[in-house]
Amino acid sequence: MNFELTSEQKAFQKAARDFARQELAPHAAEWDRTSHFPVDIIKKAGELGFLSIYTPEHAGGMGLSRLDASLIFEELSAGCTTTAAFMTIHNMATWMVATFGNEQVRDTWCPELVTGEKLASYCLTEPGAGSDAASLKTTAVKEGDHYVINGSKCFISGAGSTDVLVAMVRTGEAGPKGISTLVIPADAEGISYGRKEEKMGWNSQPTRTITFEDVRVPVANRLGEEGEGFRFAMKGLDGGRINIATCSLGTARAAIEQARTYLHERKQFGKEIGEFQALQFKLADMATGLVASRQMVHLAAAKLDAGDAQLSSYCAMAKRFATDTCFDVCNDALQLHGGYGYIREYPLERFVRDSRVHQILEGTNEIMRVIIARRLLSDETFQV
Amino acid sequence: MNFELTSEQKAFQKAARDFARQELAPHAAEWDRTSHFPVDIIKKAGELGFLSIYTPEHAGGMGLSRLDASLIFEELSAGCTTTAAFMTIHNMATWMVATFGNEQVRDTWCPELVTGEKLASYCLTEPGAGSDAASLKTTAVKEGDHYVINGSKCFISGAGSTDVLVAMVRTGEAGPKGISTLVIPADAEGISYGRKEEKMGWNSQPTRTITFEDVRVPVANRLGEEGEGFRFAMKGLDGGRINIATCSLGTARAAIEQARTYLHERKQFGKEIGEFQALQFKLADMATGLVASRQMVHLAAAKLDAGDAQLSSYCAMAKRFATDTCFDVCNDALQLHGGYGYIREYPLERFVRDSRVHQILEGTNEIMRVIIARRLLSDETFQV
Amino acid sequence: MNFELTSEQKAFQKAARDFARQELAPHAAEWDRTSHFPVDIIKKAGELGFLSIYTPEHAGGMGLSRLDASLIFEELSAGCTTTAAFMTIHNMATWMVATFGNEQVRDTWCPELVTGEKLASYCLTEPGAGSDAASLKTTAVKEGDHYVINGSKCFISGAGSTDVLVAMVRTGEAGPKGISTLVIPADAEGISYGRKEEKMGWNSQPTRTITFEDVRVPVANRLGEEGEGFRFAMKGLDGGRINIATCSLGTARAAIEQARTYLHERKQFGKEIGEFQALQFKLADMATGLVASRQMVHLAAAKLDAGDAQLSSYCAMAKRFATDTCFDVCNDALQLHGGYGYIREYPLERFVRDSRVHQILEGTNEIMRVIIARRLLSDETFQV
Amino acid sequence: MNFELTSEQKAFQKAARDFARQELAPHAAEWDRTSHFPVDIIKKAGELGFLSIYTPEHAGGMGLSRLDASLIFEELSAGCTTTAAFMTIHNMATWMVATFGNEQVRDTWCPELVTGEKLASYCLTEPGAGSDAASLKTTAVKEGDHYVINGSKCFISGAGSTDVLVAMVRTGEAGPKGISTLVIPADAEGISYGRKEEKMGWNSQPTRTITFEDVRVPVANRLGEEGEGFRFAMKGLDGGRINIATCSLGTARAAIEQARTYLHERKQFGKEIGEFQALQFKLADMATGLVASRQMVHLAAAKLDAGDAQLSSYCAMAKRFATDTCFDVCNDALQLHGGYGYIREYPLERFVRDSRVHQILEGTNEIMRVIIARRLLSDETFQV
Repeated sequence: MNFELTSEQKAFQKAARDFARQELAPHAAEWDRTSHFPVDIIKKAGELGFLSIYTPEHAGGMGLSRLDASLIFEELSAGCTTTAAFMTIHNMATWMVATFGNEQVRDTWCPELVTGEKLASYCLTEPGAGSDAASLKTTAVKEGDHYVINGSKCFISGAGSTDVLVAMVRTGEAGPKGISTLVIPADAEGISYGRKEEKMGWNSQPTRTITFEDVRVPVANRLGEEGEGFRFAMKGLDGGRINIATCSLGTARAAIEQARTYLHERKQFGKEIGEFQALQFKLADMATGLVASRQMVHLAAAKLDAGDAQLSSYCAMAKRFATDTCFDVCNDALQLHGGYGYIREYPLERFVRDSRVHQILEGTNEIMRVIIARRLLSDETFQV
Repeated sequence: MNFELTSEQKAFQKAARDFARQELAPHAAEWDRTSHFPVDIIKKAGELGFLSIYTPEHAGGMGLSRLDASLIFEELSAGCTTTAAFMTIHNMATWMVATFGNEQVRDTWCPELVTGEKLASYCLTEPGAGSDAASLKTTAVKEGDHYVINGSKCFISGAGSTDVLVAMVRTGEAGPKGISTLVIPADAEGISYGRKEEKMGWNSQPTRTITFEDVRVPVANRLGEEGEGFRFAMKGLDGGRINIATCSLGTARAAIEQARTYLHERKQFGKEIGEFQALQFKLADMATGLVASRQMVHLAAAKLDAGDAQLSSYCAMAKRFATDTCFDVCNDALQLHGGYGYIREYPLERFVRDSRVHQILEGTNEIMRVIIARRLLSDETFQV
Repeated sequence: MNFELTSEQKAFQKAARDFARQELAPHAAEWDRTSHFPVDIIKKAGELGFLSIYTPEHAGGMGLSRLDASLIFEELSAGCTTTAAFMTIHNMATWMVATFGNEQVRDTWCPELVTGEKLASYCLTEPGAGSDAASLKTTAVKEGDHYVINGSKCFISGAGSTDVLVAMVRTGEAGPKGISTLVIPADAEGISYGRKEEKMGWNSQPTRTITFEDVRVPVANRLGEEGEGFRFAMKGLDGGRINIATCSLGTARAAIEQARTYLHERKQFGKEIGEFQALQFKLADMATGLVASRQMVHLAAAKLDAGDAQLSSYCAMAKRFATDTCFDVCNDALQLHGGYGYIREYPLERFVRDSRVHQILEGTNEIMRVIIARRLLSDETFQV
Repeated sequence: MNFELTSEQKAFQKAARDFARQELAPHAAEWDRTSHFPVDIIKKAGELGFLSIYTPEHAGGMGLSRLDASLIFEELSAGCTTTAAFMTIHNMATWMVATFGNEQVRDTWCPELVTGEKLASYCLTEPGAGSDAASLKTTAVKEGDHYVINGSKCFISGAGSTDVLVAMVRTGEAGPKGISTLVIPADAEGISYGRKEEKMGWNSQPTRTITFEDVRVPVANRLGEEGEGFRFAMKGLDGGRINIATCSLGTARAAIEQARTYLHERKQFGKEIGEFQALQFKLADMATGLVASRQMVHLAAAKLDAGDAQLSSYCAMAKRFATDTCFDVCNDALQLHGGYGYIREYPLERFVRDSRVHQILEGTNEIMRVIIARRLLSDETFQV
């Protein structure tokens, strides 16, 4: 067991930090305010490899570990939570295509996905199938060498601005075993996009409903075999949960740094407010919460990298713990700023709004508890 | 001791509820989205007496108790948190003029304030004097029968759209004893208003910085004597804290009602999500938190009405407890809605954004703790 | 609505406080240490009417309200949590006999119960029927004009030292409708008592398992009709929950008073530790928690007195909230005392141990949430 | 970064687990009940090296890392919290003698300390110097080649049953720089022991006040130079905090294992209570809390092993987080057991009582926050 970064890890961590400071942080508030999706900057991140961090090298990716990815995503999210979060989703989708697709699929899609020439959306959730994802109803009926897709997906990150949809659709029986994964060009005939959702935060990435009406894609666009889609989706989400938890880490870290500065700058009652013990204690607990969150994320990432038998439980624990804790950190940081925390001139209220959705996305934190408890109560080999 | 409402109380509670349902709730989301300050609707509330609820009858007010006011404000805030909150501030300012002003001041200002023909802002906070309000620096220097005012106030609710400023200014020595309260026409020469602050919430009321440059107002516009201003401001805030806490009650109640409905409507895994025990427990705790918060507010209001020696402590306790608890209630209600809680189509995220500032306003919840603890540790007669 | 005590209420509140200070507080630590059940002191409380506070006057009780009882019990529990808690159980059992028994039963048992010449235990819980009380298995089979009782009850407060058992037994079908309530002399033939349970706290009242082997009691000892027992038990518990919540109030209040004193006495780093802001904030929150808890208890008691349609929900909310909050208050008070909080020379660790069981007794706090949520989700008239 | 144990680590982890299961767990309840200090079993642990785990090999210790020690202590504390905790204190004291003593001191004391032939107490706290340890008043005045010691120490673990006192005493000026560390034979003339403290828990190790009246020890018994004692004490405590936090880990793990079993065994309402979702969620959060706590402890231990510049902050964070979280885990596990959690027949209430003191010992959790915050606010190089 050791907690040190290798020099290589330190190098790409630094690269990510520099990118975040130069390309993300200065614009994050503006992108939030104007709901701007910074496709150009995202593509620039692609040039550094940040859009295919854990995609295998044979598919053109960086081939790094999930733990490595977490180091990078933390830095990016400290610059802009929302933009970093979209990048993690793109990474997840790209990894799925690269890992579960056959050679033809890989060769078709990956070259442009790994660089960010094309951006991808992950399409699982439906209006009636949120936490109960396996009940999804979008159908893909085989007609000759095509699937004909009908149904709709909602809360799709990037929808309307991405090029590729990695979609879970029903090709067979009810339940998880009837689900397959298709790669669908975002501009295929029959696809229509709903209006951009107005959200509490995550404004710098568009979220839309996607409707499929007799959309035809070649059978060759399927990842793996029919019926494997739910498994692929869940495997994607194991990593996706680490990713989104990581985006909470970076945001909380930025909040703490901002609070440290403010505690020195702001004076009340004739002294820096950082001299007030109750505020000091709050800061201490915020820092402790962040460190604990990061440790949970790193542990889960390492379990995922190692293919641990309990990896899904650890990913769920990390996601639940880090997103809850880091939201509280951001919210506490807002409070430390008093009225200044509530206005958009300071970043705190944005940190709160952006990190709030991490407790919901990629499986709500309630679903995380279901996953953890189910395993604890059914698998005696699971020693915590 | 009894917890029953009189028939009169039930009557004006119902009137407020009806007003909230018809005039506030249907528009609250839109006002938030467009940052619209609904002056017309606020004036309509004035016709029902809701702008001078606890202003004495001799000054044209309804002359009701703080407890009565709380019943009304809870209903109004269940319709629109922000608009109700502004009304409470107007009530507070109007009450100050009516209570601390001499007959001339009262006669000059109250007739239009109690009806809402004129709206008032409460001006205490300054950029360098937030929690440490007694260090305020805006000066009012007497020249003949006028004061000449210089300085600036920030985070002023309604600023730019109101007609009367009830402002705390320094007329004497440093510290609380050098402060006086002036009634200043909002359009007096030398007053300029900053841009509308972009805030996390409370969007349907404008918040601005006000700058005074050689603003002249008659000495007759002063409430009470020189040096009494800080005391007046604090007396206003005792009630203001109950008011703002009450606005959290109404918001949390609306959130709970929304959640109850959703738990029945939303189906996952083949059943209403209200059948899942963990969500039931959450709902139970939310309801319990609301009931406890309301009890705290009512108790503090009754202490204020009775002129209890510890009234400031009880107001601080109520404000701290209710605004913290009700924010959590709103936030938990958001979570129960999953992704739907995060989008503006549903009111939950607005409830969270709007109620968040109540933990900061009218004295931060940290200052509330200072007030409570100081008394507990210095006054042996304070038996909790 | 008002929160003032009448002069009568103040009078018996003072009487209870005096009794607690003189007869309970000085001995509580010793009783805890030696597991002594102070029957003599309890009987002395009976002389003041404290063993039949809300028993109707026609049955010899004081005929006060539940709200009155709560005022008294709070004072008693500030003297000795455990002894006061036993008195509340005796009150509950006595009230059941007086209220649900016919004239003959009342005349037989109440005269000695109201004075404390005889003490009563409430016998509901069984080894296999805790939270699921309606599944109880102790049978009472009618043979002529007697019932023959077989089975066992566990966690019975006072068992082995009381004179009368108010027991819920099965006289009919499975489920709640087959349950009846019998008054059983504690020394009836066939009753045997298990060893005194060693517990975390509540040491000054014995807890034992009771086994019934062919115990015969006259049919005339039944309260009400066959099949009404579960309803009686639950009605008893509505009040029992208020009572036990009240015992948490008194304990928490004593903890806060102790902490206030200590914050002045203890010096570290050259000053009273009460000058440290983080400790001040803790104290403020403790006091606020107590006040909120008390309001919840008073509200529920008033609802019970008024026969409110939602009284069970309010009793459950009060019990859940007050016992959780006040346990935390005691635990925080312990922490404020550092090492001194952990040793028996100070009362803090006893307060923690004693109040801990209130979160479990009279329906666990989990069952409270079930009760609250069920009603919220099924009864649209329940407006919180 | 990796989180895998080496085969060597797994081996001594297993040895510790076996020892805990065979020698500690079966007796822990009895030792608690009878306040028995199991010196024989502790010495047996010494045979396995568990009394000098991180004492350097050249002093006869195992020379393992703090991280290794944490793996062992977690196992031991899962068997008996209190006995394991004493062993950690002995380890700390022995390490101090071995590390800060010169060759002569080492040779004199270490051979018997590393094996457990002699047991050691760590003597820092005084009645007036708890959190403010640097204000300690026990004096050691040099007379020739002896120190003459006067004063008293309190809350000393093992006092009266140990053989060696590693005591911080004042040899010079006020404040931390006037403190030295002496090794004092526990039976030296002039030492008297107070009565055994009655405590909430930690009953299987005696705690006493120690009074020194003209106790003479050779100057050669001093560790290092005069004035270095406070630094030594603090260095001991960095590790001591990890140790005590680790004892919380083992206790919480035992509580979770017990709860898992109970959730299957206990049936209510016709099913295993483990099927109730709210209890499942609680279990999930308990497990998550334990995993996060362990990660914090391991991280801090690794920082200590590496001599990281911020090691004291990380030790403080780990101690604060793990002891708070794991206490809650134990307390939640108690609640899951209902009434059975409250009686001594089950271990839960003991887990709660024993782990409670970890939030106080080795620096209260309030002092931990002081340590963390001070560094965060004064050291810009400290990046969390």
